[in-house]
Amino acid sequence: MVPSHALTYAQAHRQRVVAELQDFVRFPSVSAQPRHAGDVKGCAAWLAVHLRRIGLEHIRVIPTPRHPIVYADWVLSPGKPTVLIYGHYDVQPADPLREWRSLPFEPVVRGQSLYGRGACDDKGQMFAHVKAIEIHLRTRGLLPVNVKCLFEGEEEIGSPNLIPFLKRHRRALAADVVVMSDSPMADADRPAITYTVRGGLGLELTVRGPRRDLHSGLFGGAVRNPLQALCEIIASLHDRRGRVAIPGFYDQVRLWPPEERATMARNGPSDATVLRDAGAAQAWGEEGYTLHERTTIRPALTINGLVGGYQGPGGKAVIPAVASAKLSFRLVPDQDPGEIAALFHRHLARIAPPTVRCTVRTDLAARPALVDRRHPAVLAAAVACAAGFGTAPAFLRTGGTIPVVSAFQKLLGAPTVLIGFAPPGARIHAPDEHFPLPTFFKAIATCTRFLEEVGRAVPTRHAAAAPS
Amino acid sequence: MVPSHALTYAQAHRQRVVAELQDFVRFPSVSAQPRHAGDVKGCAAWLAVHLRRIGLEHIRVIPTPRHPIVYADWVLSPGKPTVLIYGHYDVQPADPLREWRSLPFEPVVRGQSLYGRGACDDKGQMFAHVKAIEIHLRTRGLLPVNVKCLFEGEEEIGSPNLIPFLKRHRRALAADVVVMSDSPMADADRPAITYTVRGGLGLELTVRGPRRDLHSGLFGGAVRNPLQALCEIIASLHDRRGRVAIPGFYDQVRLWPPEERATMARNGPSDATVLRDAGAAQAWGEEGYTLHERTTIRPALTINGLVGGYQGPGGKAVIPAVASAKLSFRLVPDQDPGEIAALFHRHLARIAPPTVRCTVRTDLAARPALVDRRHPAVLAAAVACAAGFGTAPAFLRTGGTIPVVSAFQKLLGAPTVLIGFAPPGARIHAPDEHFPLPTFFKAIATCTRFLEEVGRAVPTRHAAAAPS
Repeated sequence: MVPSHALTYAQAHRQRVVAELQDFVRFPSVSAQPRHAGDVKGCAAWLAVHLRRIGLEHIRVIPTPRHPIVYADWVLSPGKPTVLIYGHYDVQPADPLREWRSLPFEPVVRGQSLYGRGACDDKGQMFAHVKAIEIHLRTRGLLPVNVKCLFEGEEEIGSPNLIPFLKRHRRALAADVVVMSDSPMADADRPAITYTVRGGLGLELTVRGPRRDLHSGLFGGAVRNPLQALCEIIASLHDRRGRVAIPGFYDQVRLWPPEERATMARNGPSDATVLRDAGAAQAWGEEGYTLHERTTIRPALTINGLVGGYQGPGGKAVIPAVASAKLSFRLVPDQDPGEIAALFHRHLARIAPPTVRCTVRTDLAARPALVDRRHPAVLAAAVACAAGFGTAPAFLRTGGTIPVVSAFQKLLGAPTVLIGFAPPGARIHAPDEHFPLPTFFKAIATCTRFLEEVGRAVPTRHAAAAPS
Repeated sequence: MVPSHALTYAQAHRQRVVAELQDFVRFPSVSAQPRHAGDVKGCAAWLAVHLRRIGLEHIRVIPTPRHPIVYADWVLSPGKPTVLIYGHYDVQPADPLREWRSLPFEPVVRGQSLYGRGACDDKGQMFAHVKAIEIHLRTRGLLPVNVKCLFEGEEEIGSPNLIPFLKRHRRALAADVVVMSDSPMADADRPAITYTVRGGLGLELTVRGPRRDLHSGLFGGAVRNPLQALCEIIASLHDRRGRVAIPGFYDQVRLWPPEERATMARNGPSDATVLRDAGAAQAWGEEGYTLHERTTIRPALTINGLVGGYQGPGGKAVIPAVASAKLSFRLVPDQDPGEIAALFHRHLARIAPPTVRCTVRTDLAARPALVDRRHPAVLAAAVACAAGFGTAPAFLRTGGTIPVVSAFQKLLGAPTVLIGFAPPGARIHAPDEHFPLPTFFKAIATCTRFLEEVGRAVPTRHAAAAPS
């Protein structure tokens, strides 16, 4: 159970808390789009002020080459374990805008949900942890653990500056456990503890042909069209059975024993559920695996976008000089993004037509990660979920990529507990993203209880110390 | 020789004529883009006023469902042949804007050329005919033939309303010969008479997958990506040797005897010239044909543009719900656009993955056309070119499409003489389109002489009569 004084406090401040989340979501903190750089900064400043207001200390807004990191802590529980709470206050681009029922950065409550870009991913979920800290500090004046909050503004662009930051400050950021909520629930009523995330490799492939755009009537049939060449290259990246056709791509993919796959089948969504959530009529992909497996223990390659030639209304008789595509690989243990990039380059060199010039830029590279399900912090999270939602959490693998999870493991030596509060259908990354408010308040209760459980159950390795 | 009084007049009014062409080019009469509809209309009105000013009669701006047709005539030479002068005052879209050295609709003279969208295609070329009429009327008070001017505003979108207009007014538009200048020169100093044009078939192919955009981390590997499916479909449209892979596509393509191919080799550009004009390092396309043949007597398929997924800076983890591409076929005798569209539909039905839904919209359909090189009007044009440029014209085939040429043949029973004044490198349809002013004035001289030659050499079949 969540302590009743905490529930009472949350209930009494319900309206204010929703209004605060709305204020948070109102910042168009789109990390990918340079025109929103000022909004990202504004959001960081708002967050820092908010963390000070709820009683955290050592507040810092730390500039990076791109978007700032927000840090705050409360380390006045000597002998108690230290929890590093990670989250991100940046959001995905809101396009396509016209498909939103209400404006993405004018958050509104419709029905029982708050609608807006970032309402769920990740502002709403990370804010549940912030409110849990507030509840402890306001109702008891102290926390059952030491807490360090690390909120970044670059998660949606692959956390380019967080990992260097972790490296520089690994001593100051020392923690016994990392917790974050940026992952899905099992269903609308049941939270999930995600114990694996896929890695990611984002590439931008550019194909160049003639020096300038040409008239396709005058030159069509005699000059290689880079847009067509790009389509042909992309078509060569999968075979007819939905497998990635880059030689060596599957060589390092770990195979799982039948017991693990049976656990996944029990806990994970059925094919029908995945298709319903996707709004897709038919499945696609690697034979021999369920859809849940295809998106978790199997790697994938998705073309996220393609630009080439005339895109306006009507026609334009043009052979474009250049075309480019954004490719994203999702990787699983024990694939390495650097090795996969090398395999891609080798494949491209073999298949690219000699009549065009190809260049590849790496936009993101993150390793896949695994967390030990038997770690006491994971068990603490399970107890907290049961208290907050009245049901045991599911243990899930996710297809998404959270580049920092393997970095926390490697650099801080701390396991990351991923408690997922994103319900199916919350439309993260899509128009009409929203966060159900009942889920939000249950998440706050869960996070409140989680800090208590960690204080009770997790052994202390590290002395708490704020970053210098 | 061009009569000296004509040359004297042109020389004396040189500055004004250039300023008039600048005024004409300044209208952003982009027929494909709805936001420019008012500009197209404004351009038509300017043209009508100008035609009245130079002494033409029966001026009309005739509305159509989209962009108006401008008509004017001078039919006071009974017994003389009637020349229908065709041209188009609409232009291609100016994208990509940032690649222009000066703004496309702020025409400026740099060096010896006028820069601006439409400066060459087709405002500059058609304006040479307008100025030839002015020279005759101003220096002699009459024309050596009857003249009907028919200037449309929809050529760049496939002339959807011109052909219905020709059908309705075929009697009033009756002419012995049609002349137009919307085609290339053989080289910078030598005009060309184009005697074949390729037909065109413009299709927009749309591929739909999931009902909405999906997170590619969560669903990548389990759901068909319509953007990838579109690339695969496009890749299937050509074989490895550069031939269109749609079954039956080449069945109706006419084969030409060795003599004709030898004539083409003498008159047409060499492979090296085509590559230099294209700014391309290597050739591509159907084996067994020169590049000039590949773009004239052989059909082609070009992907003009593709839209799908996230196109902004950085990345977005998305499986787009929809992707679409603009395809344009260039057709040769005896291919029929309707039959080719049917073959495409059949091929698509066979190859499209069942996991996506495809739709096809036809944006343009025009038959290829041939003109008899021995017609007296063609010979008149050759004499005029020799007078205007001091050199005999080349006889060319072009890869471009001029949908009205076959319509004039079919509906008016008149051959169309295509006198090309567009020099290589004029960058029509591309950024930095321009028209060399020396070429412009030689074109005016040529058009002036052409009307005299036709008056002398072309038999009169039709009584001149203005449209009612």
